[in-house]
Amino acid sequence: MLEELKKRVYEANMLLPKYGLVTFTWGNVSEIDRKAGLFAIKPSGVDYDLLTPEDIVIMDLDGNKVEGNYNPSSDTPTHLELYKAFRNIGGIVHTHSPWATSWAQAGRGIPCYGTTHADYMYGEIPCARCLTKEEIEHDYEKNTGHLIADLFKNLNYEAMPAVLCKNHGPFTWGRDARKAVHNAVVLEEVAKMAARCEQINSKVQPAPQELLDKHYYRKHGEDAYYGQKESRR
Amino acid sequence: MLEELKKRVYEANMLLPKYGLVTFTWGNVSEIDRKAGLFAIKPSGVDYDLLTPEDIVIMDLDGNKVEGNYNPSSDTPTHLELYKAFRNIGGIVHTHSPWATSWAQAGRGIPCYGTTHADYMYGEIPCARCLTKEEIEHDYEKNTGHLIADLFKNLNYEAMPAVLCKNHGPFTWGRDARKAVHNAVVLEEVAKMAARCEQINSKVQPAPQELLDKHYYRKHGEDAYYGQKESRR
Amino acid sequence: MLEELKKRVYEANMLLPKYGLVTFTWGNVSEIDRKAGLFAIKPSGVDYDLLTPEDIVIMDLDGNKVEGNYNPSSDTPTHLELYKAFRNIGGIVHTHSPWATSWAQAGRGIPCYGTTHADYMYGEIPCARCLTKEEIEHDYEKNTGHLIADLFKNLNYEAMPAVLCKNHGPFTWGRDARKAVHNAVVLEEVAKMAARCEQINSKVQPAPQELLDKHYYRKHGEDAYYGQKESRR
Amino acid sequence: MLEELKKRVYEANMLLPKYGLVTFTWGNVSEIDRKAGLFAIKPSGVDYDLLTPEDIVIMDLDGNKVEGNYNPSSDTPTHLELYKAFRNIGGIVHTHSPWATSWAQAGRGIPCYGTTHADYMYGEIPCARCLTKEEIEHDYEKNTGHLIADLFKNLNYEAMPAVLCKNHGPFTWGRDARKAVHNAVVLEEVAKMAARCEQINSKVQPAPQELLDKHYYRKHGEDAYYGQKESRR
Repeated sequence: MLEELKKRVYEANMLLPKYGLVTFTWGNVSEIDRKAGLFAIKPSGVDYDLLTPEDIVIMDLDGNKVEGNYNPSSDTPTHLELYKAFRNIGGIVHTHSPWATSWAQAGRGIPCYGTTHADYMYGEIPCARCLTKEEIEHDYEKNTGHLIADLFKNLNYEAMPAVLCKNHGPFTWGRDARKAVHNAVVLEEVAKMAARCEQINSKVQPAPQELLDKHYYRKHGEDAYYGQKESRR
Repeated sequence: MLEELKKRVYEANMLLPKYGLVTFTWGNVSEIDRKAGLFAIKPSGVDYDLLTPEDIVIMDLDGNKVEGNYNPSSDTPTHLELYKAFRNIGGIVHTHSPWATSWAQAGRGIPCYGTTHADYMYGEIPCARCLTKEEIEHDYEKNTGHLIADLFKNLNYEAMPAVLCKNHGPFTWGRDARKAVHNAVVLEEVAKMAARCEQINSKVQPAPQELLDKHYYRKHGEDAYYGQKESRR
Repeated sequence: MLEELKKRVYEANMLLPKYGLVTFTWGNVSEIDRKAGLFAIKPSGVDYDLLTPEDIVIMDLDGNKVEGNYNPSSDTPTHLELYKAFRNIGGIVHTHSPWATSWAQAGRGIPCYGTTHADYMYGEIPCARCLTKEEIEHDYEKNTGHLIADLFKNLNYEAMPAVLCKNHGPFTWGRDARKAVHNAVVLEEVAKMAARCEQINSKVQPAPQELLDKHYYRKHGEDAYYGQKESRR
Repeated sequence: MLEELKKRVYEANMLLPKYGLVTFTWGNVSEIDRKAGLFAIKPSGVDYDLLTPEDIVIMDLDGNKVEGNYNPSSDTPTHLELYKAFRNIGGIVHTHSPWATSWAQAGRGIPCYGTTHADYMYGEIPCARCLTKEEIEHDYEKNTGHLIADLFKNLNYEAMPAVLCKNHGPFTWGRDARKAVHNAVVLEEVAKMAARCEQINSKVQPAPQELLDKHYYRKHGEDAYYGQKESRR
């Protein structure tokens, strides 16, 4: 079973270079097996060209390494906190994808300017504040997870599967690792178009609420009619 | 005959990833057989990597599925309205191509700044208003088609084979599916250059009317002299 | 001998898609044989995917087709005028490459902001005015050539192998077709960096004259020391 | 031993086109053998498509060619000065990579807006002033090296392995040629995201000092915990 999980996480990680979301080792994907209480994650600093399924590291929910020859991603404590806070998610992605990271560096959430965004993410993609000096110096990665979880106390993490961390970059999630990568691709595309949109019209306003509702619910929930029935979430 | 139509529509759909116009399943192409009163369209939400000619769906002009194992594209009612309104077109494309979509999100038509644009599209590419709450909530996709048709009451759809839908994205058309894809590629290139052009010179004015006339009629109509005679429209 | 010329022009044309300078058929390359008084040019509107050396058209300097099954590029009269005006050039390229075309549409010359530009082009790349209504309506392509030749009465066409035509796009030239394509690639790169440079610093000034001199003469003329001796111009 | 050095320098040079950092011959990589007092560098103006390990030129630290059929890169005197000034580096890269060059042309250092930057470069990437007329006209390339060395009298070249030269382009370095190329890739990515970040938020401020410290020391020095122990610097 762990072999299957490692293979899935390996394959989801390999989608990051395929979709142009990573330079060098700047990204990581994990997936959790909720029943076993274990999650699999990319090893830290290993080149995508050299990565194999066997290199994937297995962690428990106390942050102990259960299996693997390598150190896990340095962002592992962030993944762990998110799995604890968001009980219905199965996969998490962190990248430094250039457009999403540019928004994160700018310290701005991404307004919803159109249906491409609304099809996947319900409303403005939030940007979490920078951590304080104390939060940075002690348990930095864990505090990153806490900060995101705090921010989502007033947000529905299932309807908004993405966050920007100020001065850092994005995290996305989904029901499994592959779906979380899918959302990372969407985020990058949406971030690109929102930036260009503001350059084309510096007074642009977010799309009206009724359009957001229409597109989000066209793809999600009981009345969804996009795609084929069996493939809908 | 339907097999031939499905093959043509399949091939035209596969040009979208080839030209970088789609991410995931964010686009669809259709072509109509006017004599048979049927059109063929991409199935909804099926990956381009997995698409085959057999997956293409055949619809009649009342919106009934005539053949196919899948649901047709969720944008099918928009295609249908456009085929009814624009009697001389044979193919339609919808994408979320990034530059055209950025203009659509910005809610601006694309001014004609040069001959690349004028060679294919006669004047400013229009941007249709956002639908009203009522239009969104009931028959959204059909109303999108109506809105475009209304907008073109004062425009020549053969001389302007493209439109932007505010907060959404572009539609293009042509005498067949392949030509409609061709226009989608042109639109994306023109949208990119117009945005950059405005950044280079914030006071830029549209190209003079006589240049638009020259370039458009160099390629279209009786006095056209671009290309080889047999390949001209 | 014509076969050799056609082959060279074919190969130079095929460099345009290789370097990402053309979409569809939006570009053409020619080369002249000064002794024979003939030049070879791409046929009009023929896809690069389908182009063969046999398709290249041979023209004389009176504008008559000497050999070839196709019509020559519709821009042929412009090439012809440039070959007459610029006696030392051997090849000409026209494209709608996106960054250079964005500057042309903006109606601005490209200031020399650095050594990448200065290595190849001595000073600001000029932008020719838009043609008048009369010039557009009669002998448009020939008048484009005249306008460029006029503009260069006060410029050294060997030190400045590129021009932008307002609302249209760029022409470049060189001692042969391949070198002209080389300059088209340089122009596109320089146009891209100049636009971005102005966004990063809206008050940027052109590079100082002494740096332009240094870099231009490092590569050109008697005291050149860049590259290997035999490959210098 | 020289064969091994030439092979390493050849391979590092070939990474430049792989990572999209060079057009034509606009870049060069060198590596030094400190014990032998020799360094290997790309020949001047030789196409990457044609480059072989045998073409790499060996130079001594007095600027004499020790081995090689070609002239060394015209930037060789700059490399030489940097090897003299920065005693712990083993490799140097010069490119005209578009984003970094756009900042250099703009004459601005690149502020540290986030952790992607902070992971590799400690603080703002400096931009050296343009050389004076006298410095340009005599020993230009050597003076470029002096200028950089001067600028780093107040900077730690190991913590800041990159510099921009105004109106010109970037140099990067590292413990060997491959690491220097790695830093050139990072610089280009960071330059791109900083430019976009400023467009998204024109009032953006650099990341707080404690975040820079955290990320830099997460990857460098005794307390580093990113990656696998054996692969850390």
